[in-house]
Amino acid sequence: MKSLSECSVTVIGLGLMGASLCIDLKQRNLCREVRGVTRNFGTILRAFHENSVDLATTDLSSGVAGADIVILSTPVRAVVQMLETLGPILWPGTVVMDMGSTKAEICAAMERLPPRVQPIGGHPMTGKETAGYASAESGLYEGAPWVLTPLPRTSNETVELASELAEAIGAFPTTMQPARHDQLVAAISHLPFLMASALVHAVSDCGDEDPAVWDLAAGGFRDTSRVAASDTQMFLDILVTNREAVLAQMDTVSAHFQELRRLLAENDEDSLWRMLSCSQATRAAWQQKKGAFTTSAQG
Amino acid sequence: MKSLSECSVTVIGLGLMGASLCIDLKQRNLCREVRGVTRNFGTILRAFHENSVDLATTDLSSGVAGADIVILSTPVRAVVQMLETLGPILWPGTVVMDMGSTKAEICAAMERLPPRVQPIGGHPMTGKETAGYASAESGLYEGAPWVLTPLPRTSNETVELASELAEAIGAFPTTMQPARHDQLVAAISHLPFLMASALVHAVSDCGDEDPAVWDLAAGGFRDTSRVAASDTQMFLDILVTNREAVLAQMDTVSAHFQELRRLLAENDEDSLWRMLSCSQATRAAWQQKKGAFTTSAQG
Repeated sequence: MKSLSECSVTVIGLGLMGASLCIDLKQRNLCREVRGVTRNFGTILRAFHENSVDLATTDLSSGVAGADIVILSTPVRAVVQMLETLGPILWPGTVVMDMGSTKAEICAAMERLPPRVQPIGGHPMTGKETAGYASAESGLYEGAPWVLTPLPRTSNETVELASELAEAIGAFPTTMQPARHDQLVAAISHLPFLMASALVHAVSDCGDEDPAVWDLAAGGFRDTSRVAASDTQMFLDILVTNREAVLAQMDTVSAHFQELRRLLAENDEDSLWRMLSCSQATRAAWQQKKGAFTTSAQG
Repeated sequence: MKSLSECSVTVIGLGLMGASLCIDLKQRNLCREVRGVTRNFGTILRAFHENSVDLATTDLSSGVAGADIVILSTPVRAVVQMLETLGPILWPGTVVMDMGSTKAEICAAMERLPPRVQPIGGHPMTGKETAGYASAESGLYEGAPWVLTPLPRTSNETVELASELAEAIGAFPTTMQPARHDQLVAAISHLPFLMASALVHAVSDCGDEDPAVWDLAAGGFRDTSRVAASDTQMFLDILVTNREAVLAQMDTVSAHFQELRRLLAENDEDSLWRMLSCSQATRAAWQQKKGAFTTSAQG
């Protein structure tokens, strides 16, 4: 098996995640060649101009021809569709990775790839609420967990190469089953997104009656609602490919929220204090363990 | 009426907000004298040592004697209690301000102050999730809206002096009725706090079954849950002094959240897309209007 430095790497989809990956691979000189595949001609020109790829094309076949590693970086359901298209045209021995936010459907589609290729699912736990090539940046993966979900057919060498790639750009690879990954991200990523969306709708209702609410909104609203600004199509794909786990998490959080409401309505200060100080301690301990985050203003 | 530079200013409570105010007033040389009142001897020593006050004391009477402006910076219900105590000992003409996060109960208590003093409610819309003198910092108020809630008895000169103080440390004063303030912050501050608390409880449930969730949790969880780490007593005071408005906001957000749940459960992708893209556009437009915020990692 080749090492990363000997590999030609093709990234399909030059949005935030894909383009940021290209920038790191190319500008840190981590592999033999970096190719980008995108439907957008403007992105091709920009990627060349900014030296974030060696080669960019709108043509999928020539983009993946002879590549050692092909990385799919599109919304989840586009990854699933793309895998169907790629099956017949991938060269023997190609490692096929992805960076989709849910893993069960993608890994099921990867199982259907021809036996001559080596698939492995993946999800780097980073990003930001802005999308597209214009939002890409060097160092996006620095310090991020990168979940790898090998299939039963995935060789150890493929897991090692995928891990080498993640580590090369500063991420921390960790392997787990696709279903387990999807359960965990339902709680820490998909649930916060839906809560943020609901919060923005609630503040909008308030703003319809009194627009001053938007002027007063400060750091508390800013941070709690930030992920609501994420790309809609990306999150729609995530939600519908992780429906059951997300619905279960929504019910869990609703139960806690309604309990807080009941305690406040009944003026049960002791119980309310206990419940709030429990989440206070948990959140503060997590932050301390995760290391120093930037603190920011709060309303 | 004196200008700020001629005033002796006493800040009661040297936590995050009070101590940050002292630091700005003292180190930018904005008033004649800065005094701090705290129950904590250690804080007195530290405030002297770090030159954030001219004088600090645990004794309320001597702390406020002869002060031109007295600013209460404690949790809301402690402000209400403190106003009772202060009434008899404040010198004639003293301007009494506060920085509490709800205004109706505080302004009602201010109405009961003797006629010889000039009360005005206030709430600077800034802060962070860490509490206490150790978290204080210079520049905390820079760019923040500072709501002022004058009473019917409050003179124009008092409003002007309070505005001068807010502007001197970089904040943007804006006046409104206490009840209106409390309605607005229920949506943009108290609601996000309760949602963050519920989210932490939900992720804790998940972590009880699979502790790996805490390792994977990244920027999405971090930001959405940040305010849950806020001081419990401070927020308990806020919630119980703004109960009706908070309960109404909780019901509003629950309705939106349940609508999102229904659309996902019924696989109504078109309606789900519309609802998510509406909050996406609203949140993105707000951020753009508010100016460039630091973007941060997201899971």
